[in-house]
Amino acid sequence: MQKKARLRKQFKKHKIDGFLVTDLANVRYLSGFTGSSGFLVITDKKALFVTDFRYQEQAEQEVKGFRIKIENTERAKEIRNICDVLGIKSLGCEEQNITYGFYKRLIKAKVRLKPLTDFVESLRIIKNQKELSYIKSSIKRAESAYRKLIPHIRTGSTERKLALKFEELLKQSGCKLLPFEVILASGPMAALPHAKPSNRVLKKGDLVVIDWGGEYRGYFSDMTRTLLIKGPDVSRQKALYSYVLEAQKRAIECIRSGIESARIDAAARGYIQQLGYDDYFGHGTGHGVGLAVHEKPVVSWRSKEHISENMVFTVEPGIYLPGFGGVRIEDMVVVKKNKAEVLTTLPKKLKIIEG
Amino acid sequence: MQKKARLRKQFKKHKIDGFLVTDLANVRYLSGFTGSSGFLVITDKKALFVTDFRYQEQAEQEVKGFRIKIENTERAKEIRNICDVLGIKSLGCEEQNITYGFYKRLIKAKVRLKPLTDFVESLRIIKNQKELSYIKSSIKRAESAYRKLIPHIRTGSTERKLALKFEELLKQSGCKLLPFEVILASGPMAALPHAKPSNRVLKKGDLVVIDWGGEYRGYFSDMTRTLLIKGPDVSRQKALYSYVLEAQKRAIECIRSGIESARIDAAARGYIQQLGYDDYFGHGTGHGVGLAVHEKPVVSWRSKEHISENMVFTVEPGIYLPGFGGVRIEDMVVVKKNKAEVLTTLPKKLKIIEG
Repeated sequence: MQKKARLRKQFKKHKIDGFLVTDLANVRYLSGFTGSSGFLVITDKKALFVTDFRYQEQAEQEVKGFRIKIENTERAKEIRNICDVLGIKSLGCEEQNITYGFYKRLIKAKVRLKPLTDFVESLRIIKNQKELSYIKSSIKRAESAYRKLIPHIRTGSTERKLALKFEELLKQSGCKLLPFEVILASGPMAALPHAKPSNRVLKKGDLVVIDWGGEYRGYFSDMTRTLLIKGPDVSRQKALYSYVLEAQKRAIECIRSGIESARIDAAARGYIQQLGYDDYFGHGTGHGVGLAVHEKPVVSWRSKEHISENMVFTVEPGIYLPGFGGVRIEDMVVVKKNKAEVLTTLPKKLKIIEG
Repeated sequence: MQKKARLRKQFKKHKIDGFLVTDLANVRYLSGFTGSSGFLVITDKKALFVTDFRYQEQAEQEVKGFRIKIENTERAKEIRNICDVLGIKSLGCEEQNITYGFYKRLIKAKVRLKPLTDFVESLRIIKNQKELSYIKSSIKRAESAYRKLIPHIRTGSTERKLALKFEELLKQSGCKLLPFEVILASGPMAALPHAKPSNRVLKKGDLVVIDWGGEYRGYFSDMTRTLLIKGPDVSRQKALYSYVLEAQKRAIECIRSGIESARIDAAARGYIQQLGYDDYFGHGTGHGVGLAVHEKPVVSWRSKEHISENMVFTVEPGIYLPGFGGVRIEDMVVVKKNKAEVLTTLPKKLKIIEG
């Protein structure tokens, strides 16, 4: 299996002869297992999937390319026994996932651990054709549900009712789970980038930020649209929208293979700064999306990553004015040699709801 | 605030003069914050809630009894600075939550860390009256949605459609989020304790295991009922059901303050063993429920915990026969001095669906 081969290639550099995968998205990526308890041990020759009794049948159905083993003792001891049987002298593990407490138990069980960073994540960051097609299907589901939501949005409905309706539509579109609870924030609530849908009633002149995602075979999507509900004086709302749209356009236009991700962030942020709104754009410009809805690469001013072909991430600048409202526009892109291909197909012209 | 005082009482014993709370359920328990990024630092005199820009407004609305601080540097450095300002010489942290990677970064930033176990969890395990009322409301929501689901269950419908409908009903009953995706497994699928709803069509004679939970102000509930769809020969199904019901009854009856939780497990397991089915009951008998749907106490043969008054946990024995089906019956109980009070109110007589 190609993924395992790519993983094994890194063994020598890190002086390990086995690797322990505990992050469940990584477990799924490598083995196909979708359950919520299980881990992998991979050596040069062997590949073991370990889970508990509850997941035996599921593992037999899903797991490919790994021998299945059912745990029959405490997990740290189980791993110690596996190391003995497979002759592992130095076992790499995922330091971003493994807790300090579990680390301690493994050390106590005399497992020779080597904590490593982004060992599987560095593979996951580049999507293959199959993954890209899953991500596109995930976007399609998310978009089709959104189109069905639009007619329900009007003054008088509450954020919470609309968000609930939207989640139903997303599930009906085929998503088995959602990457996060739908964000649907109106008026002043839209100034909170991660607002929870409240009982606030939509009013004339509201900006409505809707941030949601879909799922297809475990692959997520993530997008945001901001709508305006018609009102007497909405010039400030429209201006804000146009600023964010232009910022997003500039970020997307600078994307190409090889660029530093911080430069993408700077393209959006620089424009917002020119307008004097940089204090109101507190989050990064984007993040990778795949089996996790937040994964590598990080697209922010703090990031030192370089962008490569077939990375998939969001571009989502925003401006949030406390007490007034906010705008965020978020698309997903896949990196090509000389440009970004925008995967999100929903229009970005400001949608005005008659109310 | 009483919770903070109980926490501080433990400082001396562990030789710490500050405690870092990173587990989000613990953050919510102590501060009221419901967002997904933030941590607490508590000393004898001070209590600090720290989050990033995105959650500032939400924190101001929700957090009580803590000074709010917005992070402005990398998290490990931020914590180091806080230790300097508050004069913390030895900072307790949650070793079951903190990753090894973050631990390393804190050590590198010269934070003097003392990893501890169950520091906040040992408070959470005993519920106060307010928490009990929230849990009861969470059960009520879950039960009212279940009653509305029943009329939809019939031969010809698929597991997935029913599960989807059920999740809608749960959200409509007021649950803002669900503790886990609804499990609805029929016929042979019911032999998988954690089956995902599939496209299998319900058939005559099926056992249908439904495992779900509700939510109220962050407090979860968790329950399971097993139904039977009328069929020509269902004597084995009925017998299995009666075994599990009796096992559950025995477990509940032995609960009292002071008992070892392993004895509760043994009461159910011993009975199932007498019948010769102990190989088909692979999971523990129960687990605590509160702000997390799986929390302390653990009720299993491996557990060494003792049960005390006002602990809340599930009692959920099951028998799973590969290829045939399964039965699980799960109630929530709160421990009183001499008995368990069963919180789940749904009937346990085998419900037979006409089909």
